[in-house]
Amino acid sequence: MAQFVYKRRVQFSETDMAGIVHFANFFRWMEEAEHEYFRSLGLKIVEPLVDGTTLGWPRVSVTCNYSAPVRYDREIEVRLDVERIGARSVTYVLEFWDDQVRLAAGRLKSACCVCHSDGTLVSVDIPERFLKQIHASPDVPTTE
Amino acid sequence: MAQFVYKRRVQFSETDMAGIVHFANFFRWMEEAEHEYFRSLGLKIVEPLVDGTTLGWPRVSVTCNYSAPVRYDREIEVRLDVERIGARSVTYVLEFWDDQVRLAAGRLKSACCVCHSDGTLVSVDIPERFLKQIHASPDVPTTE
Amino acid sequence: MAQFVYKRRVQFSETDMAGIVHFANFFRWMEEAEHEYFRSLGLKIVEPLVDGTTLGWPRVSVTCNYSAPVRYDREIEVRLDVERIGARSVTYVLEFWDDQVRLAAGRLKSACCVCHSDGTLVSVDIPERFLKQIHASPDVPTTE
Amino acid sequence: MAQFVYKRRVQFSETDMAGIVHFANFFRWMEEAEHEYFRSLGLKIVEPLVDGTTLGWPRVSVTCNYSAPVRYDREIEVRLDVERIGARSVTYVLEFWDDQVRLAAGRLKSACCVCHSDGTLVSVDIPERFLKQIHASPDVPTTE
Repeated sequence: MAQFVYKRRVQFSETDMAGIVHFANFFRWMEEAEHEYFRSLGLKIVEPLVDGTTLGWPRVSVTCNYSAPVRYDREIEVRLDVERIGARSVTYVLEFWDDQVRLAAGRLKSACCVCHSDGTLVSVDIPERFLKQIHASPDVPTTE
Repeated sequence: MAQFVYKRRVQFSETDMAGIVHFANFFRWMEEAEHEYFRSLGLKIVEPLVDGTTLGWPRVSVTCNYSAPVRYDREIEVRLDVERIGARSVTYVLEFWDDQVRLAAGRLKSACCVCHSDGTLVSVDIPERFLKQIHASPDVPTTE
Repeated sequence: MAQFVYKRRVQFSETDMAGIVHFANFFRWMEEAEHEYFRSLGLKIVEPLVDGTTLGWPRVSVTCNYSAPVRYDREIEVRLDVERIGARSVTYVLEFWDDQVRLAAGRLKSACCVCHSDGTLVSVDIPERFLKQIHASPDVPTTE
Repeated sequence: MAQFVYKRRVQFSETDMAGIVHFANFFRWMEEAEHEYFRSLGLKIVEPLVDGTTLGWPRVSVTCNYSAPVRYDREIEVRLDVERIGARSVTYVLEFWDDQVRLAAGRLKSACCVCHSDGTLVSVDIPERFLKQIHASPDVPTTE
């Protein structure tokens, strides 16, 4: 029972000489799913703050286990579930499906950070309005 | 004590609007380090076989934990160690360093496969000449 | 009056440290529009042939002139027109729009080729069924 | 007689399912050559200014004509010549070679701009110290 589904066609430029999607692209797809999830909640993944910094969600850790290759032109599903909402981070579980075939599964942990224009990242508590939206979305675990 | 070091300058196209390298690029760097390691042993990561298929090393699983962001123009080091040599796969541990700063650390497990031109992958035993070279390289664990 | 319109959201991984989309991504977008155009005509941009080769459309030349930067999260339009149908190639004119702002304009010339598994490309006449579909699509110039 | 040569190994992630380098990567290689050229002159392609903006070189236009495909693992040369130094832009001619085979040739026009953190670009005159270095480099045309 996936909370959020993001659909995506495999593009030619995402394949490699093995005739299949290059493994690093699954991480771009994870990110696209995360951002589309935020969009679906009316939240911005990159939010300008008044002092010129931005509120963003850089990655703490990612994993991916591959079970089947996927080829050009296929329409895949990225299924995203919120696994854990911490004080300063959100962890997602993601699955990649091509019709009835599970291509891969992974995990993405993003930290809520103030991002300075020089690339410095400072971890901060997730603002209340983000917490409220994420908690209100279907299938989110009700306790930490 | 790293077994193999691959040096790499951060390119402009690898950065994102947060002013730092996009996290998915660390997986391309892992791959570049793995391939350079094979090259250093005189091995080919993609080897044409007589029947038109190729012997290759698709990914079984990857992980990466990020500790510090890295910016454009920096010269980074990817340090690769062979963690485990299985009958049909090799697992590498990788660390990313910018001078004295550890940027990230991860793990890459690649399976030895016969790759068909239609994208089908068939797992096979690692050929003897690959095993011999990998075992002979410095710092490889002597027992499984 | 554009013949074919492909819509696309700007992804985070497509931006660079200047805070805007990296210029090389416009060529991936051109390709996505070309492939979606073929799809809309019921044509395959990569078509397996009986002898193990494939019929494909590698690029002969591309150009792009940039007039305005585009940022993350915008929904852009790629407008594609067929400019010229040669015996062995098709030339497209492409425009990139963000709402009322023209971002860029370019040209893409693709050659019909038999693609061998070793990467060799052999230019061939465009098959009749491709010509028929492309000529039948709206706004295509009626004479060469 | 090329002014500046940038050498580069073709990476696996740069190939596509046709078994050759994806055409859009040639633009990343152009950029890498341009940046390495600036580095060789002791110039920064991205230079922070005192007011928080940066001096950068976004693209005005690019072209590329492809003559031969290139495969994984090849070591290529990108040969860069300065074709024209304008008041506010520099135009480069680039050729891509794999040993004796010319792969592609193109042109890159970059404009000297003040880049604001919101992505706004403002064209400015090329500072004197940049002009001096570029003019002093070998093979640059002595007149505009």
